[in-house]
Amino acid sequence: MSNDTTPHRHGPGCSHDHGHDARDTGVAGIALPDDAASPILVEVTRGNMVESIHRGRAAVVHASGTVEAGWGDRSSLIYPRSANKSLQALPLVETGAADAFQLSDAELALACASHSGEPMHTERVAAWLNRIGLSEADLECGSHTPYNVAAWEAMLKRGETSTQLHNNCSGKHSGMLTTALHRGEPTKGYVGYQHPVQQRIMGTIEQVTGQDLSNAPWGVDGCSIPTIGIPLEALAFGMARMADPVDLPDRRAEAAKRLTAAWGRHPEMVGGTGTFDTTFMEMVKGHILVKAGAEGVCCVVVPEAGIGIAVKIDDGASRAAGPAAAAILRKLGLLSDAEWEALLPLVQPGIPNRKGFDCGVLRAAF
Amino acid sequence: MSNDTTPHRHGPGCSHDHGHDARDTGVAGIALPDDAASPILVEVTRGNMVESIHRGRAAVVHASGTVEAGWGDRSSLIYPRSANKSLQALPLVETGAADAFQLSDAELALACASHSGEPMHTERVAAWLNRIGLSEADLECGSHTPYNVAAWEAMLKRGETSTQLHNNCSGKHSGMLTTALHRGEPTKGYVGYQHPVQQRIMGTIEQVTGQDLSNAPWGVDGCSIPTIGIPLEALAFGMARMADPVDLPDRRAEAAKRLTAAWGRHPEMVGGTGTFDTTFMEMVKGHILVKAGAEGVCCVVVPEAGIGIAVKIDDGASRAAGPAAAAILRKLGLLSDAEWEALLPLVQPGIPNRKGFDCGVLRAAF
Repeated sequence: MSNDTTPHRHGPGCSHDHGHDARDTGVAGIALPDDAASPILVEVTRGNMVESIHRGRAAVVHASGTVEAGWGDRSSLIYPRSANKSLQALPLVETGAADAFQLSDAELALACASHSGEPMHTERVAAWLNRIGLSEADLECGSHTPYNVAAWEAMLKRGETSTQLHNNCSGKHSGMLTTALHRGEPTKGYVGYQHPVQQRIMGTIEQVTGQDLSNAPWGVDGCSIPTIGIPLEALAFGMARMADPVDLPDRRAEAAKRLTAAWGRHPEMVGGTGTFDTTFMEMVKGHILVKAGAEGVCCVVVPEAGIGIAVKIDDGASRAAGPAAAAILRKLGLLSDAEWEALLPLVQPGIPNRKGFDCGVLRAAF
Repeated sequence: MSNDTTPHRHGPGCSHDHGHDARDTGVAGIALPDDAASPILVEVTRGNMVESIHRGRAAVVHASGTVEAGWGDRSSLIYPRSANKSLQALPLVETGAADAFQLSDAELALACASHSGEPMHTERVAAWLNRIGLSEADLECGSHTPYNVAAWEAMLKRGETSTQLHNNCSGKHSGMLTTALHRGEPTKGYVGYQHPVQQRIMGTIEQVTGQDLSNAPWGVDGCSIPTIGIPLEALAFGMARMADPVDLPDRRAEAAKRLTAAWGRHPEMVGGTGTFDTTFMEMVKGHILVKAGAEGVCCVVVPEAGIGIAVKIDDGASRAAGPAAAAILRKLGLLSDAEWEALLPLVQPGIPNRKGFDCGVLRAAF
């Protein structure tokens, strides 16, 4: 796949004007021509017919760099979105910021999280910010209502409104603020592409994935930080090195181990009650780590095998990414029969009607 | 496309068992092989890269039966879901039930609607049921929280829970109950495949679309009634005959005209505040009628041109179906420059971050 983007390091800011730019001008970026469609990874049935399908790409890479398996164009660029939060959290640990501010495992897990805005998440983030002398007002992620519907309903009944603490990325942002504070960098504007926090993260991802991202296309994520276009297989390689960081510099390898340990020990922090990621990791007792990203991304880290996986559903459907990743794990023999059986309601969910009866099923199609 | 389904008229009911059947046995139904991918109808950008794409199929058919335009495999089977509610409402009018119970235009629009569960919808449905001597308890659609978030929040603050009236299909179901009552058929069980109400609807759709659906694959819709697999272009032809019913039997043609008139006069009943369908029809002053269906379906009726359009987004994304249909209307010259310009925020929406700034755009890609 050719990446015919023009250099754009100072490119798309996120302003009202930008929306107009995107509407009026051509977008270079990736091409997914009609005659090179990705394979069907997931199908959704209803009655006795397939109703919808999800095409996508996936790469399975070993920490040695060997590509173990692939679906579709593995070299195509994708935005990792929230699925690479563990890579984005590496500087928090390796700069010494995490130690300086005595971050707990739960807080490190929150730094890698897309949490559901439940009290167990928001109270912990608030306490963390308070401990480092900052507050919710220092976050620059914006707010949205909690993903957890019960949490939101309870708030509404109490007459509360959502704050930036409820943003699923508030833990990641607290980690970025912690790093900035520790390094004596301005906390204001830490979400900007040129801010040292973001440049440090980009450099770290470049080293871990073996990519030069200086001219990579990028966009602004939902939480206002940059998300950088990266080849799917490079993202999988980055996850493989999180799984087995033996070839990373010592300080970075230590940071990777500490983050994956926290991620596996606190699945409830990384997602939330009933989410795919949390439920999956709880059911496999944390020996496999998963992380969703917006627009149909899923990253997987398998420490015991030194394997990393990256999945991108072409159409951006979050419902398909996790189940596709799970089916790949099963195909690779990384999930036991007992685990697969127990995971079925999660990875091969029924499609219920409004009375709660299943009318079909969502399942892998490869 | 070969339709190699086995006859299944008495097939998939909607029970707990069924979910297991769907999981354990093969599903015949449509095939969308990797090497015959549908074209990309919609793309979603972020910064300077295309992040996600939506492939799909579309058919534009004239009331004469002429196919005016097409994208992808027009003969493939799709479930129309809620996009064919106007066809499902024909018997309500042509049996005389609508007149016998003095249904208003707003009520006829609700019979064709996927409403947002706002008070303007639920109060009207409740009054309608009361007038025919029935109540919310006679509905068999199940309940879900209102699509309209403000309506839901207001309910939560008042300590209310959602009822079957809030189901987006409660108007359609009230129409079915009205027909059953008028014809002296049992109201209990009216959602069943074999119930006269559903068989009458199937026969009507067969006549209007020119299809034999007796052996068509089918499934149970979210609101528990059958949804029947039908070739995409046949669904578009059905919509074309709603647009210009000149070749339909007199009574049916009259019913079609009355329903499309009600649909165009009450866009706020067919969807709800801020929905794509309602906003679109209000902006074009009802001279074009649109109706969304679950899993990425959109039907369009253009009375002035005798044109019907059916769109199915392969992956089921609702965000893509309306914009794809709008772009087709524009390509056909059925939307003026002024209309297109005014519709842009709806049909080519920005992709905002959590602070409300656009980071990309969703737009047609053909």
